[in-house]
This record gives sequence, C-alpha cells and structure tokens, in this order.
Amino acid sequence: MATVSIKQDPSVLAARLTKAAETAAAAKLDALLISPGSDLRYLLGAGGESHERLTCLVLPADGRPALVVPKLEEPGFADIPLAELGIEVVTWVDGQDPHAMVADLAGRGGAPSRLAVADVMPALHTIPLRAALPGAEQVLAGTVLRELRMRKDAAEIEALRKAGAAIDRVHARMAEFLKAGRTEAEVGADISAAIIEEGHTEVAFVIVGSGPNGASPHHDVSDRVIERGDVVVIDIGGPIAEGYNSDCTRTYSVGEPAQADVRETYAVLEAAQRAAVEAVRPGATAESIDAAAREPIAAAGFGEYFVHRTGHGIGLDVHEEPYIVAGNATPLEPGIAFSVEPGIYLPGRWGARIEDIVIVTEDGVESVNNQPHELVVLPA
Amino acid sequence: MATVSIKQDPSVLAARLTKAAETAAAAKLDALLISPGSDLRYLLGAGGESHERLTCLVLPADGRPALVVPKLEEPGFADIPLAELGIEVVTWVDGQDPHAMVADLAGRGGAPSRLAVADVMPALHTIPLRAALPGAEQVLAGTVLRELRMRKDAAEIEALRKAGAAIDRVHARMAEFLKAGRTEAEVGADISAAIIEEGHTEVAFVIVGSGPNGASPHHDVSDRVIERGDVVVIDIGGPIAEGYNSDCTRTYSVGEPAQADVRETYAVLEAAQRAAVEAVRPGATAESIDAAAREPIAAAGFGEYFVHRTGHGIGLDVHEEPYIVAGNATPLEPGIAFSVEPGIYLPGRWGARIEDIVIVTEDGVESVNNQPHELVVLPA
Repeated sequence: MATVSIKQDPSVLAARLTKAAETAAAAKLDALLISPGSDLRYLLGAGGESHERLTCLVLPADGRPALVVPKLEEPGFADIPLAELGIEVVTWVDGQDPHAMVADLAGRGGAPSRLAVADVMPALHTIPLRAALPGAEQVLAGTVLRELRMRKDAAEIEALRKAGAAIDRVHARMAEFLKAGRTEAEVGADISAAIIEEGHTEVAFVIVGSGPNGASPHHDVSDRVIERGDVVVIDIGGPIAEGYNSDCTRTYSVGEPAQADVRETYAVLEAAQRAAVEAVRPGATAESIDAAAREPIAAAGFGEYFVHRTGHGIGLDVHEEPYIVAGNATPLEPGIAFSVEPGIYLPGRWGARIEDIVIVTEDGVESVNNQPHELVVLPA
Repeated sequence: MATVSIKQDPSVLAARLTKAAETAAAAKLDALLISPGSDLRYLLGAGGESHERLTCLVLPADGRPALVVPKLEEPGFADIPLAELGIEVVTWVDGQDPHAMVADLAGRGGAPSRLAVADVMPALHTIPLRAALPGAEQVLAGTVLRELRMRKDAAEIEALRKAGAAIDRVHARMAEFLKAGRTEAEVGADISAAIIEEGHTEVAFVIVGSGPNGASPHHDVSDRVIERGDVVVIDIGGPIAEGYNSDCTRTYSVGEPAQADVRETYAVLEAAQRAAVEAVRPGATAESIDAAAREPIAAAGFGEYFVHRTGHGIGLDVHEEPYIVAGNATPLEPGIAFSVEPGIYLPGRWGARIEDIVIVTEDGVESVNNQPHELVVLPA
C-alpha cells in the first residue's frame, strides 16, 4: 500500500546501479526503464507507487541516471540518497506527459534503438513509451537485472534468514490455529495475524488446503470445515521490513490421518524433498534440482501427481529467478536462494507439499527453514 | 493475495462480455487480451492471479472467448460459470508456452492486426505476446473497457454505497484513534484494524498526514508524534467483499488548531468542495468539475497550493476513469462514480483535503460519503 523505503548503504546502491548499467551495455541496451516494483527497490531502496501516474528510473548504459516522478510522490523518495547517487530528479504534475519526459531522458545520448523495461511495467506505460520512442525496440529488463538480483549479498542472505526464522515461528505455533471444527478461512485469519506478530510487515499469501483442497496446489482458503483425520497443506509467507520474503510449506494431520495411504506416500515426498535439498551445491543446474525431486516421486509411481516445478528463486519478490524447472540449465552459485517444494496431489482426496527456502553456499547448501519435515500430527 | 471471486449473475457477465466484444469490434480490434486485474474481475467475476504464470482471457471481437489459465490456477475459477458463458478453458503446465497458446487463440479468425491488452498486463507478458504475434499492433484495452466500467449498474452503485457507508463508520470513530502523543503510524494501525472491522476485506491505503506532513498529499504514515493543535489529513479506503472500493478524506484538528490561518483557509476549501459536488449533473464535463473546485481556491489566492487533479473515477479500482482533470471533456452520465477531493497544501506548515465519492444521478448527484465536511475538532 505504501512506498516502502529500505535503509541501504548508499555505496551498495551505487554499486548496483553501476553493475546494472554495465550489464545493460554488455546486452547492447541503450537504457533500462524501471518503474515501481522490486527492481526499483533493489536499485534505489525505494519502491515508489505503481499506478496510473508514471514513476520511472531512466538508467542509461552510459550516462547520468534520472528519476521521473510525480510531484505528489517525490516525498516518498526523501530518504533515498538520490543526489549522492548522481540521480537527476525530474518531477511532473497532472496534465504533463511523463512518457515524453522519459523519452527525452532516454534519448539524451542519441536516439535509442533498444530499451529494457521493467518486467512489471504495465501496458498503461509500455505502450505510451513505445509511441514516444517508436524507433526503440522494447525488451525485458529482467533478463539483465536477474543476473544481479539472483546472487544475494551478505545483507540479503541475512534478511532471508530472518524472514525464514519468522515464518518458522508461525509454523511452530500451528497447533494454536489448526483444529478440527474450524474453517480453513478461520485458521487462515489466525495465521495471518501470527505472520504479522512474528515479524512480517505484510501477509503475502496463506494457503490452508485441507482434505481434498490440499490436492489443489494453489488453493488459498475456503469455508470448508476441517475434520479430524484431515491432511492439511499450510503454505505461508510475506515480506519482512528489509523487503525480503519468507515462503514455507509444511503438511499437517489433524489427529492421525484418516486415509490409509498417507504415511507411506508422505514418506516418498519427504525423501524427495531431502534428496533435492542435498543435491544443491555450486555448479549443479537448476533443472538438476528439479530432477532430483522428481525422480524419487516418479519411481514410487506418483510422477503424474507432482504437477508443478520444484521451486522458484526468492528475494524482494516471492517468485523470481532462478526457476527450478526442467529446461533451466542455469548453474547454481553461492548466494542464489530458492524454494525446494515438491508436492504430491491426489485429486479429490488429499495433497502434501514440503517447502524450504535454501541458499547455495561455497560448498553446499543452507536452509533458512528448519521446522521438522515429517508429517506433523496435531491434536484434533 | 488470493483469487477473489465475486458472485455475479451469469446474465450480467454475459451482457458485459457481449458489450465488450461489440465495443472492441467498433474500435476495429481483433480481440481483447485480459490478464488478471479489475478488468478480468469485471468481465468474469474472478480476479485470477497476476504473476509470472500467464492467465489471460482471449475475447475476440467476433468469435468464441477462451480463458488460458495455468492448470494450478484453474480451481480459482471453479465458481465462475465459464461453460454457461461459452468460454473455452485452455490450461497449461510449467514448461509449456502460454503466450503461443494465446497467439493461436487470438489468430483463430485469421491473423490479427490489432489487439488490445489489459492496461495492467506487465511487460513480462506483453513483450512475449508481441513476439508471438509480430503482425499485431498492441493497444490498451482500457480505452474500450472504460466505456463499460465507467457507467455503473444498480448493483455496482449499491456496492459503492455500501463501501462508502463502511468508510464513513471509520471516520465516525476517529476520536478513538487520533490523539496527541501518538505517532501517525500508531494511529494508522488502529485505523487499518477499523477499516476491516467496519466491513472491508482489505486495507488499500491509510494516509495520516499530521502537521507539515499534511502538506504532502500522498504522504502515508510516519513516526511523527501528533501534537496538540495539529491539523491532520486522514485519507482512507479499501475494497468490500463485492470488490468495490471506498475512498474518503476528512481533515481533523487535534484540539483547536494551533495555526492562526487554519479556520479561514479551511472555509475556502470546504466551499470549493461543495461547489464542485453541486456542479455534478448529467452533461457536465469532467473538467468542468475540476474547474468548479479550482476556481474558488484560486480566487482566494491558494491556487498554487492545490497541486493535484480534483478527482478520479472509482469502482473495482480505487483509481479508474474518468479522471476529473483539466483537458478531460468526458461528459458525465448517470451511473458515473468519482471522487471530488480538492486540497490546499501549505508546504512545511499544514494541509487539508475533503473527499467524497459521488455518483451522477438522472438529475444531479448522490454522495456515498456523508460524514460532516467541516474541520472536525477532536479532544486533544
């Protein structure tokens, strides 16, 4: 809802801006055009407001960066060391044409032929920018910025650890919330409150998938009343003050599981998730981790019930590069953070998923989530 | 955070889809491509999830509509009468190319030359869609859909009234929250809780602009401690279960105002806001309402301190068409809903704003916000 400013050492931001410009130059881009979202938070430490009034950082591959910002929104950048970073501030008021301003700034070094726009920039802005710069091809800034954002520095890793510990504390309290006779929505509301209490600034998502709803991986909550013997998938997360996100799934049973196949099937999933985490090390590819999770599940005959990729990168966005999916040959490097979250979903019956956020280290892997991985049987 | 489904009479949705296709045809568009956001909620009653996995309604100007949706997200549309609406559902899984699927569907009636994409569709999807349909110009779907969404039907008007009454109840409780010695952030947190308690599903924004912060129109909250004698701008709102938003501003004084010019200046603002609301009737233009608010403020010598447009349309989005701004000659019609929110901002000193959501009626105007407009002096 609000402009989130993250207190960052100006030298960190300066280094990111320089690296982004260098990477843009190497990719033969004239400039990056970055509207509000996590790319802007990464580069400036401030989110800005994303709506019909354009805010846009113009970052030339070679030249002085500028921030085009509605006069109304300028105070939201008051804590950002824009002058120290050498960023020119260009404000506009209702009635002026901010797309023409961005075009002028992007064209200062000569007519641009190739511009990268933030992946999240809405058509409301990309289309007028195209009209204002008809000679410039638009490509995705994410292809450049993911090279930077994917590799977390020490402070980012510390923030991910802090977020992981916060969501672990919510899972540790699950017996308070998850009981037979309550609806998923009631349980979800309590979990939302706990997510804030345990140190997040917002609730990004709360999935309470009980019984057959657990077989729908992106189910959120419903009015279904949880019954004794239900298996329940709880997938929760959100950002902490530093802007970095948590995301952790555990699967619970409310009393002993009612269905006879739960224990055996869950053991397959648990082994698969462990195998995938153990496969994480520098040099392993993203797709090899997906394969490491998928193989034991397929070998046990559940391959068709593991219906999504194994994971996604995480940081300022809950979902970012690298995606842990077949076809992604990105090699892992120290500082890359992502989820390992295989699942088995038996349509109409029950489902299970186990998810940890892990960080590649110099010689292996660190998990920021450390609650028990086994099926947690709660008092009904 | 979650897929919001709005229970809608299928005949209402069917009429909207037909009207949207007709309007697209009249605008010489081959199809509308609508990704998750309020346009999709308007047309289908379901929001869908907006992220790196593409969900997109393909609505040809002439032909059968289709919904491209990740298999994972399909359950989020379970409550939507897709079959009854004649919408083909095309699911995809990780590893498939959803942009190619949309291109195929949009090309069923022949190679498209002009496609409208949802205003909110991120570059992450518009750029791959352009690559998949290189012969098709992309334009904004908002130019078509605003013709529909701007004119609210009876149920939408009822939802706006309900949202208005809910936020009025929060303003009526302001003495509980806004007191000298508390920080803006503490007051804001209590207001957020009250916004939910009084019937909203989410908090969209909370502005608590005390003292000099009130002179920054888009300030949100800060750690500033509110003092006796401060003038405080409170601008708050959010959606109710029907998906429609509230948005209402009142200006308070914590005890009698400390600054000598408050009463006289506020009287100018109050008269300006009243004059603008009284100018609302069918046939008046959007810009004429802006002028009606601006003239009394300028005449009193405060023109340079009213630094934003007079208002914005409201509905499924907090900000939508029509914008009440110089240069917008859109004529008002019954059912059009928008904010009337002039302000006077004295930099470094204090600010004030008064905002009501109004709806154009057959012969004039209805305000959905009805708390007193005068400067409300609270016990310090």
